[in-house]
Amino acid sequence: MPATKWFDLPSPFAMKRGVDLHHAGVAYETWGTLDADRANGVLIVTGLSPSAHAASSEADPEPGWWEGMIGPDKPIDTRRFYVICVNTLGSPKGSTSPASIDPATGAQYRLTFPDLSIEDCADAAAALVHGLGIDRLACVVGCSMGGMVALAVLHRHRGIARAHVSVSGAAHALPFSIAIRSLQREAIRLDPAWNEGHYDAAHYPENGMRIARKLGVITYRSALEWDGRFGRVRLEADSRADDPFGHEFKVESYLEGHAQRFVRQFDPNCYLYLSRSMDWFDLGEYADGDVAAALASISVERAIAIGVTTDILFPLQQQEQIADGLRAGGAASELVALSSPQGHDAFLVDLAAFGPPIARLLDRF
Amino acid sequence: MPATKWFDLPSPFAMKRGVDLHHAGVAYETWGTLDADRANGVLIVTGLSPSAHAASSEADPEPGWWEGMIGPDKPIDTRRFYVICVNTLGSPKGSTSPASIDPATGAQYRLTFPDLSIEDCADAAAALVHGLGIDRLACVVGCSMGGMVALAVLHRHRGIARAHVSVSGAAHALPFSIAIRSLQREAIRLDPAWNEGHYDAAHYPENGMRIARKLGVITYRSALEWDGRFGRVRLEADSRADDPFGHEFKVESYLEGHAQRFVRQFDPNCYLYLSRSMDWFDLGEYADGDVAAALASISVERAIAIGVTTDILFPLQQQEQIADGLRAGGAASELVALSSPQGHDAFLVDLAAFGPPIARLLDRF
Repeated sequence: MPATKWFDLPSPFAMKRGVDLHHAGVAYETWGTLDADRANGVLIVTGLSPSAHAASSEADPEPGWWEGMIGPDKPIDTRRFYVICVNTLGSPKGSTSPASIDPATGAQYRLTFPDLSIEDCADAAAALVHGLGIDRLACVVGCSMGGMVALAVLHRHRGIARAHVSVSGAAHALPFSIAIRSLQREAIRLDPAWNEGHYDAAHYPENGMRIARKLGVITYRSALEWDGRFGRVRLEADSRADDPFGHEFKVESYLEGHAQRFVRQFDPNCYLYLSRSMDWFDLGEYADGDVAAALASISVERAIAIGVTTDILFPLQQQEQIADGLRAGGAASELVALSSPQGHDAFLVDLAAFGPPIARLLDRF
Repeated sequence: MPATKWFDLPSPFAMKRGVDLHHAGVAYETWGTLDADRANGVLIVTGLSPSAHAASSEADPEPGWWEGMIGPDKPIDTRRFYVICVNTLGSPKGSTSPASIDPATGAQYRLTFPDLSIEDCADAAAALVHGLGIDRLACVVGCSMGGMVALAVLHRHRGIARAHVSVSGAAHALPFSIAIRSLQREAIRLDPAWNEGHYDAAHYPENGMRIARKLGVITYRSALEWDGRFGRVRLEADSRADDPFGHEFKVESYLEGHAQRFVRQFDPNCYLYLSRSMDWFDLGEYADGDVAAALASISVERAIAIGVTTDILFPLQQQEQIADGLRAGGAASELVALSSPQGHDAFLVDLAAFGPPIARLLDRF
């Protein structure tokens, strides 16, 4: 049974780019117990695709997307902390999104959903935190896109957290990542079945989503990992008998498997909205284009920015920028540079490397 | 007036994977004069997309794709060397290819063209060299895919050259590059207009080719270059008024320009064949899977392998592998590691860095 709960956002909910949402909300899960002084909250904001189900619980024993990180005696220890994971506003995994019904029309929003910014996701997450009766979190943890959301939470809601863990995040989008995401969106939009957002299960932009997902997986991992993992190993039964350009190499079937597991599990319009929100994000907007100054205007007591040398999508210098910027703002702030070979996705798989620095930061509470 | 000439390959021309080509040939251009002792030949084998027109000449004053590298007193000095650039077998830029008419049927080969391997491109280039009356070249220069072709030329035609310049090449394809190329081919094949290879100008897989080309350009350049060149600069007139997911950033219009210049200038079936030939290439096949041993079985007097640290498609360690392998085979062999920010494409644009080491190698003749 899903342990996901629903939180009503204030209605109207003002969006950064000027249009209000009405009767919107976010899905979330929690683990652990809020202390009497309401000071042990840890908010987790996610990457583009995960749901709020970050870890299993009694209510929902299914493993979560960060199962190794969150739980009793795990790095984010649910015996000590009240852990909240929010499904991003705009995500089809429970929160209000382009796939939701617009109460004004009774039909899906699709492309009538207002422009979605990272800041809106941040405001929704902050509203949830306050709605749970928490004025000040112990920590905000943001992974990947969630790293952007977390910085927006901290910048727009001063004093909302004592500490910050930025995991393979970024304070603004750089052109290589913009190019990748733009191409993913283009592949979806070029699929005739996308139909300006008016698809259904029978007419679904499967091809566009396949290309977008495979390109995503290529940039989420690293060449170094794949040299060791796949090399030039061929498939035992390749598909060339039927198709002269069919798959022959193990790396191709790996991508295929990822695409097949994703394609009909994620709403294409939501993908477009969330992807674009990352391209738009630039914390520097709040300091005349100076990202470092915007970071330095965030006030937390302690912070770590963790990244890996093999990440090509949110490269390590972006985590360094965050660590340096928060330090300039007065935080005891540290860059944790890991050499995990798994690229951007390392935080999901190399928990042996990511767990200890997160545990050390949280142990100081 | 194009200066391109035509060379008839032996007919039948045996292909590596077992099917013969009949009445096939390759397009080529030459610059300079062959010495009386026929010892000053320099063969250039190209990347996937260029034609044989590597440089201007009296017959064709249009600048070539390596204009800054080839000419009187340039690094590849046409006062001293007889320079030959061959259009790759399988390329639509003049040589026999899937876009050519099959003499047996009178119709375009399309997907009935035999499986094309890098080794076939190499054999065609070697046949041209011998056909021009040259037993032993001064040097074989191979760029990108041409780096693979050049190694196959040297391995399959022992003694054909005294020296080798490998420019951003590779002795075998690695999984990251295979994944990128597999995805490019998938984008073309998923375009309904591709129609199993039976397109024409009115029904052309433009969308698939756009995605393939943009993905190519992303991997041909580097994030480092783009941070400096594009940053987060927006277009003066973005296209969002008409299209909520239209282009907003300069990097997006840059990719768009590249796609528009490429899409109808390159035959999609040829693209599929040439792209697949790179995935298949593995010099290690000739030494029980041991690439280093296969390289060491090549005999040249001198070699350099030039690469750049920012190349993600043919990464520097692949050039290092070539330099080391040829040295083990007895060559005076050197790795030239450049820090050009332009990634894989640096050899086309950073001639100030690539020219001198090539000139130094050729000066020793």
